[in-house]
Amino acid sequence: MIRVDYTHMLADVIGSDKGVTLSELEALSERSEQIHADLQRRRQRGELPVYDLPFAKKVVEQIRQVADEWGGRFDALVVLGIGGSALGTTAVARALLPGLYNQYDRAARNGRPRLYVLDNVDPVSIKQLLNHLNPVDTCFCVISKSGTTVETMGQFLIARQWLQAAVGDGCVDQILLVTDPEKGVLRRLAETQGYRSFAVPDGVGGRFSVLTAVGLLPLAIAGVDIERLLAGAAAFSERLQSPHLLENPAYLNAALHYLAYTKGMPISVLMPYSDRLSDFSDWFRQLWAESLGKKIRLDGRIDPVGPTPVKALGATDQHSQVQLYMEGPLDKMVTFITVVTQDDIPFPDPVGIPELDYLAGKTVGELLLAEQRATAAALARCGRPNITLQLESLTPETIGALIYMFEIQTLFAGGLFEVDPLDQPGVEAGKEYTYALMGRPGFSSVRNELENWIESVEPRII
Amino acid sequence: MIRVDYTHMLADVIGSDKGVTLSELEALSERSEQIHADLQRRRQRGELPVYDLPFAKKVVEQIRQVADEWGGRFDALVVLGIGGSALGTTAVARALLPGLYNQYDRAARNGRPRLYVLDNVDPVSIKQLLNHLNPVDTCFCVISKSGTTVETMGQFLIARQWLQAAVGDGCVDQILLVTDPEKGVLRRLAETQGYRSFAVPDGVGGRFSVLTAVGLLPLAIAGVDIERLLAGAAAFSERLQSPHLLENPAYLNAALHYLAYTKGMPISVLMPYSDRLSDFSDWFRQLWAESLGKKIRLDGRIDPVGPTPVKALGATDQHSQVQLYMEGPLDKMVTFITVVTQDDIPFPDPVGIPELDYLAGKTVGELLLAEQRATAAALARCGRPNITLQLESLTPETIGALIYMFEIQTLFAGGLFEVDPLDQPGVEAGKEYTYALMGRPGFSSVRNELENWIESVEPRII
Repeated sequence: MIRVDYTHMLADVIGSDKGVTLSELEALSERSEQIHADLQRRRQRGELPVYDLPFAKKVVEQIRQVADEWGGRFDALVVLGIGGSALGTTAVARALLPGLYNQYDRAARNGRPRLYVLDNVDPVSIKQLLNHLNPVDTCFCVISKSGTTVETMGQFLIARQWLQAAVGDGCVDQILLVTDPEKGVLRRLAETQGYRSFAVPDGVGGRFSVLTAVGLLPLAIAGVDIERLLAGAAAFSERLQSPHLLENPAYLNAALHYLAYTKGMPISVLMPYSDRLSDFSDWFRQLWAESLGKKIRLDGRIDPVGPTPVKALGATDQHSQVQLYMEGPLDKMVTFITVVTQDDIPFPDPVGIPELDYLAGKTVGELLLAEQRATAAALARCGRPNITLQLESLTPETIGALIYMFEIQTLFAGGLFEVDPLDQPGVEAGKEYTYALMGRPGFSSVRNELENWIESVEPRII
Repeated sequence: MIRVDYTHMLADVIGSDKGVTLSELEALSERSEQIHADLQRRRQRGELPVYDLPFAKKVVEQIRQVADEWGGRFDALVVLGIGGSALGTTAVARALLPGLYNQYDRAARNGRPRLYVLDNVDPVSIKQLLNHLNPVDTCFCVISKSGTTVETMGQFLIARQWLQAAVGDGCVDQILLVTDPEKGVLRRLAETQGYRSFAVPDGVGGRFSVLTAVGLLPLAIAGVDIERLLAGAAAFSERLQSPHLLENPAYLNAALHYLAYTKGMPISVLMPYSDRLSDFSDWFRQLWAESLGKKIRLDGRIDPVGPTPVKALGATDQHSQVQLYMEGPLDKMVTFITVVTQDDIPFPDPVGIPELDYLAGKTVGELLLAEQRATAAALARCGRPNITLQLESLTPETIGALIYMFEIQTLFAGGLFEVDPLDQPGVEAGKEYTYALMGRPGFSSVRNELENWIESVEPRII
């Protein structure tokens, strides 16, 4: 379903020491096998439930049942979530639903609701969305593992008030919760006020949760075939069993990125040539940045590390970013994703304009693929490394496979970069400062400390 | 309208040598004044018409007239363009039209058409869009300076065929062209086939063209107040007159980015805290990357340079990218943009949930601003430099001012980075390879050369 073309990563092909040699890959093989063995051990011990998500048939049956019922009842579904509670849904919906889905009438949506993902606390967006929707016809999916995520819980309070004003206590039947299986505010609400709820499985962090109820529930309500999504991940998992770098696409991709990083390329561009994959890059951006961007290494030493993922889109960004990629500092590698499109458009017959008539007889899809090949070759010939991930088609199965591959790739990359890919200690300080500034009880000493610091600093503003 | 808070850029505030000192800024002052003088000289000679765009009243009157006529006639406007022919329109439309504009009915759109920007050659998107639209009710704005941009011209051929099938030769009255004032395929078509057209002024490259007909025409058709956009740019231009770094926001912002780059921070994150500014970052990304990412310096030496702009969105990306920004390598600076929202939402009264009740009495807008202040302070206190651009409101005037400021900042940064900010030689190779692969006449030797290279390379694919 997915092939990894790494021809343009090799030093002898691109004629640059920014390229990778086969012996460098070879030299990583022992370490790779250790990382593999460690991952397998932890998987056996139940510490890495991410591995098993594609096979959770029973959970999916429960989701399917609720999704079909709620999907038939409502005209709009609003996801309240942020970060890992939103990005996966957005990415998969963009990939698998029509681009103008929310502008379709109900029949063209197969009787399914419109899908809105509210992943920010921008009052203008919230107001515009609620004014646009009919509370009688709208359901919400509130997603927060902890139940204290301030953005999501703030949205929840507003959405609930908005529903209540229109439908009273019946609003309980218009809100689904996805949260911790046992604790937290949302779990308590589910138990005491009768909200229907699903669990985020223990040990699955937000950025790894798209193949749990976090992503599957809203996607299924909106009509995505989640069974095929998981079947694709499950099928592709066989290709990710090998401990050998050159046989395992996830490991190979991780290793190439790691080697590029060690060769002074801290920037990693993901550039799919498909509009439908544009939001997929945002999902990957979180997975890669939040998992690998760490200050403390596995052995406890302090040594900040982490590639910076950058989102680009082909062919569009050829007219925006490729000048920099071609001529700027040799500080980045590019990963292209190509898709063979079944649903192509032929260019019109010759129209008597010599500058354009060469397009006749060709298709738009051919042009798009030619642009990717041209850009990849041009970069390679300037000594700039790049990988092409080839998707044989864009279906629920291949998207499921791609998600699963990137998740395993990230776990493996944690080993190479010597960091814990499952934590995110660096976001705590900002959260505490937010709580302090918003007057949350228990944060007054943080607030004093922050205000003292702010007062001690001379503001520089023009 | 815009204030630049650079407190967190200063070394003594963030306690890190990644910060900037006032004496480093001082040391740049002489060079800055030379760059300023040079820009002024070139402006006088008519070489930098970008400076004068906010004052082009006559052109705007012509645009206004056509825009009101076409805006009243059609239910949908499709922009065909890519890169600088699309990003500005998308950015300003997202900033100034309601977020769900295309889902509004005609009355809620003030009688103006829906706006679609087709900036890629993805056959799936093109097909979905055309299937969704009614050719009788749809007009197109085709934007290509050269008239040979393969993506745009390919779209044009398809769109024209689609219109012609429905309305015959009347399609001429449904297509507006924006192109070179004198030469190229589109200019020829305007002259021989009677298309209504506007000119991209000489000397204004795509990425600097949003304040010409390239951006103003489609924006005005969709109902944006382009007069106020330009008035904002014109008013703010007064603040950009000073040759002194510490008095000129555009120069200061450029200098801070330049100093950060020289201190080992090649990555520049733009992180507005406003959904309406999310696409603005894409517009800026082209401006910054394509203008400054260069291999050849002004004195002719080969020395690749150029910061890599990264798009982020607050508060959303706190849950995606901020872990990396806080803990990862000290290789980036962050520019925040804040907006004071007039149209705010209060959080509901206390609901008896202690973990959430602290939000009562506060507003969503307050939370959003608190998150930005918290994130900026947390970064600063980890030694990570950041700037906050404060917009007093989000209006056509402030957006016009911000666009103009960033354009002048980019011209000035060209001087600091010692590159020509107006060219883009690095994209030629990819274009030629595309033409070669698509069989365009005149490119067969390029094709042979490319195919020979491809054959000489051993493919590595798993």
